Amino acid sequence: MEKMKIVATARQVPERVVTNDELTDLMDTSDEWIYPRTGIHNRHVVTDENTSDLATSVAEKLLAESGWSANDLDFIIVSTMSPDALSPHTAAIVQGNIEATNAFAFDVNAACSGFVYGLSVASAFLSSGRYQKGMFIGAEVLSKLVDWQDRTVSVLFGDGAGGVLLEKTEEQKGLLAEELQAYGDSGEAILTGRFANKNAFVGEISPLDPYFHQDGRGVYSFATREVPKVLNKALEKAGLTADDVDLYLAHQANHRIIESMAKNFGQPMEKFPTNMVEYGNTSAASTAILLDELQKTGKIKPGMTVAFVGFGGGLAIGAQIWQF
Amino acid sequence: MEKMKIVATARQVPERVVTNDELTDLMDTSDEWIYPRTGIHNRHVVTDENTSDLATSVAEKLLAESGWSANDLDFIIVSTMSPDALSPHTAAIVQGNIEATNAFAFDVNAACSGFVYGLSVASAFLSSGRYQKGMFIGAEVLSKLVDWQDRTVSVLFGDGAGGVLLEKTEEQKGLLAEELQAYGDSGEAILTGRFANKNAFVGEISPLDPYFHQDGRGVYSFATREVPKVLNKALEKAGLTADDVDLYLAHQANHRIIESMAKNFGQPMEKFPTNMVEYGNTSAASTAILLDELQKTGKIKPGMTVAFVGFGGGLAIGAQIWQF
Repeated sequence: MEKMKIVATARQVPERVVTNDELTDLMDTSDEWIYPRTGIHNRHVVTDENTSDLATSVAEKLLAESGWSANDLDFIIVSTMSPDALSPHTAAIVQGNIEATNAFAFDVNAACSGFVYGLSVASAFLSSGRYQKGMFIGAEVLSKLVDWQDRTVSVLFGDGAGGVLLEKTEEQKGLLAEELQAYGDSGEAILTGRFANKNAFVGEISPLDPYFHQDGRGVYSFATREVPKVLNKALEKAGLTADDVDLYLAHQANHRIIESMAKNFGQPMEKFPTNMVEYGNTSAASTAILLDELQKTGKIKPGMTVAFVGFGGGLAIGAQIWQF
Repeated sequence: MEKMKIVATARQVPERVVTNDELTDLMDTSDEWIYPRTGIHNRHVVTDENTSDLATSVAEKLLAESGWSANDLDFIIVSTMSPDALSPHTAAIVQGNIEATNAFAFDVNAACSGFVYGLSVASAFLSSGRYQKGMFIGAEVLSKLVDWQDRTVSVLFGDGAGGVLLEKTEEQKGLLAEELQAYGDSGEAILTGRFANKNAFVGEISPLDPYFHQDGRGVYSFATREVPKVLNKALEKAGLTADDVDLYLAHQANHRIIESMAKNFGQPMEKFPTNMVEYGNTSAASTAILLDELQKTGKIKPGMTVAFVGFGGGLAIGAQIWQF
């Protein structure tokens, strides 16, 4: 076990709620179509915020909750596939906003696996022995990368952010094992955020296309087939069986994918909490938001074994097993 | 010391060279203006490649040079501020292209400090004990993020990629110390790569702007003032003085910044090799390209102490001291 603990959790979602019914004004869809296929009723979208604003709110809440000073932080890592900009990176904006004068900061992009991958990086920094205290946030404004006329993707996504404070400890808590895997040969299944590749000397090589394009069936099939393999490897490394895990916090892409996972592992749905009904798919933020909801309602208790499971764009999958 | 070694280095730059003279056809500038202020004569720009293509070429060369199989890789990390897309992330595309079937992959964004920050992450994964062998690549196609009518920035940047293979070792080689620091309160000094923040419910919150905007004087002043402080902290952590370092491989933004650093540390320019004369500023790729040039020409020898120094967008600075 790599000894460390999650000292605090926090989340921030925009106030503006968009219901499935509201989407029927924009396109030929309905709650009756969306909900049974996705488990999503609502999503939250920004009105004047960008990704760094949501992340900064999370950062401020994490400090308030923990009593840590911003100066205590060795690093700030933000996982996002929807940064404010390619420069400055989102984590640096957060660092400036909260005046974390001793921290370095950078962004990680592993799309919807961003929570697990970012937590992997943050925990590796602690285990390397270089650093003691870090902040990790998953933050997304996916509403800006969605063509709101395209009913194949726009009904799926939402905006939000969540994060954790991590600290080295001598207690018997920490990361038991992880298994991460890329599937770049299937990368075309989830596309988004493409600036034009062009210059003054050869003209346009490829066009601007900010929007999501997703092979929904392909991703569903990929997730239900491959995620259990990765999770099994993580369990093996931890020397655990599926029954030993108290809670599985999976990326909130689709309720049916999570039902399939629970069934595959012979586990009750109570062990696989979900919240996509309210937020949709918030990519790197989804598991962090869920984690904070479970913490705040007392559903996560000291001593519990918790699995984090991410999957999505890249394609990529990741699983971590933590002792809380 | 965190024991590990750089097993191989490689680089890939596009064939197409754009001279300062060629830029005079596009805007009111000249070699006489550009070269004395930047140290740049040429830059290379893509003709049909994108960032993942340059990175994939580097990955293939790294495997060829080392004799490693793609299956040996535990992870692939790409530092970039100019990815092909926000999804799939560039590292996943590379993983798919080279068929690294056991590897996970993600992107890091720390702008022009991307080489040092990515190497920090990669080395932390090895030091955590989780992984043995990793690939780290810095890759940029900045020509797509440049307004080629804007002489304040377009003369500065170029395209390219470079990378390393890293492996755990029992030899007395590895990372001696690092110091990384963010300055997010000055983030506005280097802006690029902004998709419109808009949705169907509130309209456009902020506009599309792919292009670089840089406060050149501010960045120059920042770099010459703050980089030495960070480098000094890294030297202190390593228990070394500036004289103990054999080579300083600094981000290739501007020859005058590097001259200022050498002077500040009382070191001869021979210890601060440069190559921006041929490539311009290639952000996360610059130090990796330089490292490979020095390796291939025998200028880096076993036992040498080498400092990597990055600075730029975020704003951010990073320094690592390695025992080769």
